[in-house]
Amino acid sequence: MAEAGGAGERINAEVLEPFCADVLTKFGLASEDAAISARVLLASDLRGIDSHGVPRMAAYTNRLREGAINLHPNFHVVAETAATIAFDADNGMGHPSAYRAMQRCIEKAKETGLCMATVRRSNHFGIAGFYAMMALEEGLCGMAMTNATPLVVPTFAREPYLSTAPIAIAIPAGNERPIVIDMATSTVSWGKVEIARREEKPIPEGWALDRDGNPTTDAHAATWLTPLGSTRELGSQKGYGLALWVEVLCGQLAGAAWSRYVSGSRTVPPRPANLGHAFMAWRIDAFRPEEEFRAEMDQMLAELRAAEPMPGQPRVYVPGDPEDVALADRLERGIPVHPKVVAQLRELGDEVGVRAPF
Amino acid sequence: MAEAGGAGERINAEVLEPFCADVLTKFGLASEDAAISARVLLASDLRGIDSHGVPRMAAYTNRLREGAINLHPNFHVVAETAATIAFDADNGMGHPSAYRAMQRCIEKAKETGLCMATVRRSNHFGIAGFYAMMALEEGLCGMAMTNATPLVVPTFAREPYLSTAPIAIAIPAGNERPIVIDMATSTVSWGKVEIARREEKPIPEGWALDRDGNPTTDAHAATWLTPLGSTRELGSQKGYGLALWVEVLCGQLAGAAWSRYVSGSRTVPPRPANLGHAFMAWRIDAFRPEEEFRAEMDQMLAELRAAEPMPGQPRVYVPGDPEDVALADRLERGIPVHPKVVAQLRELGDEVGVRAPF
Repeated sequence: MAEAGGAGERINAEVLEPFCADVLTKFGLASEDAAISARVLLASDLRGIDSHGVPRMAAYTNRLREGAINLHPNFHVVAETAATIAFDADNGMGHPSAYRAMQRCIEKAKETGLCMATVRRSNHFGIAGFYAMMALEEGLCGMAMTNATPLVVPTFAREPYLSTAPIAIAIPAGNERPIVIDMATSTVSWGKVEIARREEKPIPEGWALDRDGNPTTDAHAATWLTPLGSTRELGSQKGYGLALWVEVLCGQLAGAAWSRYVSGSRTVPPRPANLGHAFMAWRIDAFRPEEEFRAEMDQMLAELRAAEPMPGQPRVYVPGDPEDVALADRLERGIPVHPKVVAQLRELGDEVGVRAPF
Repeated sequence: MAEAGGAGERINAEVLEPFCADVLTKFGLASEDAAISARVLLASDLRGIDSHGVPRMAAYTNRLREGAINLHPNFHVVAETAATIAFDADNGMGHPSAYRAMQRCIEKAKETGLCMATVRRSNHFGIAGFYAMMALEEGLCGMAMTNATPLVVPTFAREPYLSTAPIAIAIPAGNERPIVIDMATSTVSWGKVEIARREEKPIPEGWALDRDGNPTTDAHAATWLTPLGSTRELGSQKGYGLALWVEVLCGQLAGAAWSRYVSGSRTVPPRPANLGHAFMAWRIDAFRPEEEFRAEMDQMLAELRAAEPMPGQPRVYVPGDPEDVALADRLERGIPVHPKVVAQLRELGDEVGVRAPF
């Protein structure tokens, strides 16, 4: 779901996207790859997921600067059946690798009805939702998952073994807006802790653990995250189970490292991340006539959106609705970019000779 | 995860299973179908999931007695591609319908690498884990889902629109025991509330809502369940999202009713449930050599099982471990059956002329 929008200057996506693409190109990416990365970043900002948009430019360019990402990767197929395909990203940038894998996954699903694609030796790919939503454009259902550096502590453990292991699922409807689920399998994403740190506020019980694996409400002491469910009493073994599922598809099945061994920006000396992704796409008409499906989706989504809310709440949302609200606002008024991020982007532009048009 | 084992007489599965099969046959099921239903019920008891085992015999026989389930269904294919298959269960018993759908799903996955199967117009199928685990026997990964009668209230709503929408995922390893996730996407299953009612204990905050949609810790006032995450603050929109995903696969995609319109035992007059299931299976060697996968699974699972536990906890579990502990105990010592359930089973036997051998 959407993070709280940061206060800051409003800049249009049409200004930010080509700027980011230019900067990434100057850092050595092929222009097509840079354009895909910029598109994924801006899609995140537009949908209100500020933690995964242009504020991440510095993290990506750091990895490029230190040579941790392969600028000229040989993205290639390592295994293929009628309904499956496994790619090796050759340590290339995450966004274009994921984009191409999902593109091929959709093509194969169109032919076969269903496809699962995996990617090994990849890098951070931004919001999972972007790739799941690619399927919507073709009238298919889509899924995307990734692993990442360890941050989540399994139920009853005291050290992080798993990443926030996000799952995104996109399901088309008819006239109603589609379902777009884009969730970490942890109770919250790390971005929520960072927001509390900036605002010097405590965090709710159940979000995080300190360095020793004890529950904490101090945002600064918070070091690791809990799986969705927070505690055993409230079902954290389920969030842990879902994270393991993502882990196996993106790690052991894809042939990438599992999260405990994924390298991040804090690894010295810099090493390829070797993280993995998994994607799925399936045709609706493989199961039943598409118009019947779309009509019944509309009926359910309309009922949910019109459901009586609990006291104190204005309405019931369908997953994706809060992001759609942010999208409408940000398409119209621009993306609010924090002054620190604006300064950072200008600095990056200066470093490689791209003038910031904002 | 396993429910707390009920105190009661210990009866061997080898005694209970043929008894249940005989009773179901006498209620009019084909003997092959009755055998499958009994096998799924006993698998649940053996794995410690008492809420879904022989105590459910009365519920199934009620549905059979009132003619709500078709005794002679025409289970058939309604759509098929290389990697997908959609079945119509013709309102037959849930277990044999699900069993046959998963069996065919596994066969197709062996050919194509991956398969998704759906079933419409079906009935309650017991534990989802049984069907996911069928894939393990063939060395594949498996998934199973179902919808059911409405019990779960979406985030910010006050009425139940969704079922507990369980997801089961089974993933093989090498020498280590496999991962078997079998979870409701609600914070807890309804069985946990029933246990608290029997023991006259309050339930933890976050599990349930009363008839008016307000949070309650009174097990008797508890009427509906929360999605995994419990509250918006702890991520209930994620559990809600996962339940919606299950809903769409088993409802709109399969061509069954969605949970709000699924009929249950309380519907008067009795009506076909028209619930749906979805299954998936995929081959490991479609993505990478199987021995590499199994070796890396073993490494991860061994690390998790040996992980240092948080203070006060004896160890870290992998999903499926608690059920494996129950299984070993119950295979050796028999299944603890509550005296009320023993009496109920004997009565059912008397009704149709099958002598209870316990």
